[in-house]
Amino acid sequence: MRRDYVDPGYSPIDTDLICEFHIEPAAGISFEEASTHMAGESSIDSWTEISTLSPGLAARLKPHIFYLDANTQTVRVAYSEELFELGSVPQVLSAVAGNIFSMKIVGNLRLQDITFPKSMLREFEGPNFGLPGVRDIVGVKDRPLVGTIVKPKVGLTSEMHAEVAYNAFAGGCDLVKDDENLTDQKFNGFEKRAELTLKVAEKAEAETGERKMYLCNITAPTCKEMVRRLHVLKDLGASYAMIDIVPTGWTALQTLREAAADEGLALHAHRCMHSAFTRNPRHGVSMLLVAKLCRLIGLDQLHIGTVVGKMHGDKNEVLSIRDECVLDTVPADPEQHVLAQDWGGLKPMFPVASGGLAPTMIPDLYSIFGKEVIMQFGGGIHAHPMGTAAGAAACRQALEASLEGISLQDYAKDHKELEVALGKWLKK
Amino acid sequence: MRRDYVDPGYSPIDTDLICEFHIEPAAGISFEEASTHMAGESSIDSWTEISTLSPGLAARLKPHIFYLDANTQTVRVAYSEELFELGSVPQVLSAVAGNIFSMKIVGNLRLQDITFPKSMLREFEGPNFGLPGVRDIVGVKDRPLVGTIVKPKVGLTSEMHAEVAYNAFAGGCDLVKDDENLTDQKFNGFEKRAELTLKVAEKAEAETGERKMYLCNITAPTCKEMVRRLHVLKDLGASYAMIDIVPTGWTALQTLREAAADEGLALHAHRCMHSAFTRNPRHGVSMLLVAKLCRLIGLDQLHIGTVVGKMHGDKNEVLSIRDECVLDTVPADPEQHVLAQDWGGLKPMFPVASGGLAPTMIPDLYSIFGKEVIMQFGGGIHAHPMGTAAGAAACRQALEASLEGISLQDYAKDHKELEVALGKWLKK
Ligand SMILES: O=C(COP(=O)(O)O)[C@@H](O)[C@H](O)COP(=O)(O)O
Ligand SMILES: O=C(COP(=O)(O)O)[C@@H](O)[C@H](O)COP(=O)(O)O
Repeated sequence: MRRDYVDPGYSPIDTDLICEFHIEPAAGISFEEASTHMAGESSIDSWTEISTLSPGLAARLKPHIFYLDANTQTVRVAYSEELFELGSVPQVLSAVAGNIFSMKIVGNLRLQDITFPKSMLREFEGPNFGLPGVRDIVGVKDRPLVGTIVKPKVGLTSEMHAEVAYNAFAGGCDLVKDDENLTDQKFNGFEKRAELTLKVAEKAEAETGERKMYLCNITAPTCKEMVRRLHVLKDLGASYAMIDIVPTGWTALQTLREAAADEGLALHAHRCMHSAFTRNPRHGVSMLLVAKLCRLIGLDQLHIGTVVGKMHGDKNEVLSIRDECVLDTVPADPEQHVLAQDWGGLKPMFPVASGGLAPTMIPDLYSIFGKEVIMQFGGGIHAHPMGTAAGAAACRQALEASLEGISLQDYAKDHKELEVALGKWLKK
Repeated sequence: MRRDYVDPGYSPIDTDLICEFHIEPAAGISFEEASTHMAGESSIDSWTEISTLSPGLAARLKPHIFYLDANTQTVRVAYSEELFELGSVPQVLSAVAGNIFSMKIVGNLRLQDITFPKSMLREFEGPNFGLPGVRDIVGVKDRPLVGTIVKPKVGLTSEMHAEVAYNAFAGGCDLVKDDENLTDQKFNGFEKRAELTLKVAEKAEAETGERKMYLCNITAPTCKEMVRRLHVLKDLGASYAMIDIVPTGWTALQTLREAAADEGLALHAHRCMHSAFTRNPRHGVSMLLVAKLCRLIGLDQLHIGTVVGKMHGDKNEVLSIRDECVLDTVPADPEQHVLAQDWGGLKPMFPVASGGLAPTMIPDLYSIFGKEVIMQFGGGIHAHPMGTAAGAAACRQALEASLEGISLQDYAKDHKELEVALGKWLKK
């Protein structure tokens, strides 16, 4: 039997890529057998012993299952870097997150985390701007950024879109972004929307003395069209572009990272669709790993969850993702299925909290995330009874209150917009 | 309340995009409420009533939940085509397969199928070759095609790879392909492998008088590099390229389709990683829909499952996927969560059965799939006791036996390679 992959005595070496999996064997299969087949299928093996795999080759390239715990259904596997095209996220996923999810021999299977070896980090540039670079662009150093998503998601004309954006900027938003499903529709074409909305950002900058950023969605059917939209933004003077990372896919993201660096644009990553494969804690791929791949490739800011909003994601998980976005060195946290990662100097990504947030949640958000977060409000701004500008103002007021350690109720006494927001959203 | 989306009286119109979802509401949420929020979040709505959405706009663009059954947890929603960028698979997914998987208000959620309206089909070309075009390329009209995956998946040098490929061609394979995780590794660079393997295909063609196709994996970190690899193949005289559709992603696939048409290359789609989001029948996206999107974009052949092999996928599901690949008009099949689809003349894709297959399974495969299938054997060829060429020969012999309605045991009497294969793999 060539499948001597379980090797608790093995110490991973510097150049190994290390994966943690949760494995549930199918009925009648032992944990060790399922783990062994999984490790083989994700590297050099098939279902039957192949004559074309020599013992020498197998010994050199075999995966090492150096940790195996049937009780917690956890294994850690060290893979030789020789197995990978180290600069290719798609190839790494084809190997360690490919066929294995399909195997009859496993019931559920989840790839929890990957420790990228230095040799892989060296192939990637990470964020071009990252958290500090974004702070430079926006010119805000000492507080969370406040953003909005223009609502309704789709349906507004370009003119109406720009008007809503203007109101949000004027009321106090630093960032205004498109929603995930707004790209280039007939009622609101990409070019016209970009032009009109970037124009109102400039107007609001002149009026407020603050920097105002528009994050236009360049999600597109082809890379050529995606990069064309990026160029359009650049020509119109934008500093930013946004992209739906999952429907677009990894090859497009690596393509975009190159193009955006040439253009000097920062990249906002919307993670819609991730929960199709990240939500079930027993199957698929973790959101933590999605975040790591985004930092590796070099997106500048990423949605990571809110804890308190409308989207799924428990506090510990969201904070682990946050840490992976911002820390230089991430310590292992077996409880949260986090492997150690030395980021080798790659810049931190700016974490974004978005989804079902209202101004009333800002004290909670601030206590969960601190200053290094972008807070985004869609309905929480555009459903304010006095309108979008007032909604944005209420968010800034709630943030000021939180920064100064004053309760929202107290602060609302001489801040009308916040008072009205509390009236609408504060749980009694 | 603006959320009057449940509308059993509504008859979808020709231009609507129709989705079927399986929905499991979170605790304390009614089926109707969960469905309503899901339909809103995938179109024009947010979690709270937004002032920027006018009643007129809402009436024009609102989603219609025209079928709702809490017992089977099924809803069907008709979305106006105005909501979409009709030529963009990523945009359509960002809408109807985006944030909704994350909503706290649902426990599990699965997108089962989409009926693409004619207006959307018109934006796509479908397969350039498709099933009939592939038959022309390979010059085989009246039987299933036989292919192999070079094994081990990774680890062979380019020379060894070409040698294994040669043996497979010589033994009787029509197609030889790379495995999903073989792209451009140090030990087996893309260029050298392509050159050497295409050369042995030519040699085998001259020797056998049959056409021999090499499907080289062009999965790459960027679209530029993917298309460069495609050009390399074209320059070397290849007729085919293969791609890992899921790790690569939809924007890259639409990009590839354009480039491959220019080059006149057929496209083989490997679906590794799909089970991260297709396997759980209660959550994620169906493999059926993945297959439909591939046909829409225009891949020429796609892995659809084996029924009898090592990969998950029950017979009815696999056959539904097969039908979606090959039929001109697919009837609705509520049992299998299949919506009706008129393919509007887009060519059929060649279905591929691959994963854990042995020559002994060929009679079963033939009775399940008939002639319109590509049967691929990795271990089932390279683990043949007499080697790769004998493994390929055993497959061709088993196929001949099946076509002639002779049992493998009888046919093996004067076919040595098949006899040895039966000795190894036939379940007693
Ligand atoms: O609609 C949205 C926000 O609007 P609203 O504030 O009205 O809910 C979403 O795009 C969320 O940002 C997605 O959630 P994640 O960022 O967690 O993926
Ligand atoms: O290794 C494989 C086949 O080799 P073997 O024949 O040795 O199993 C896989 O790539 C399967 O084709 C994937 O399965 P699906 O095609 O079902 O996705």
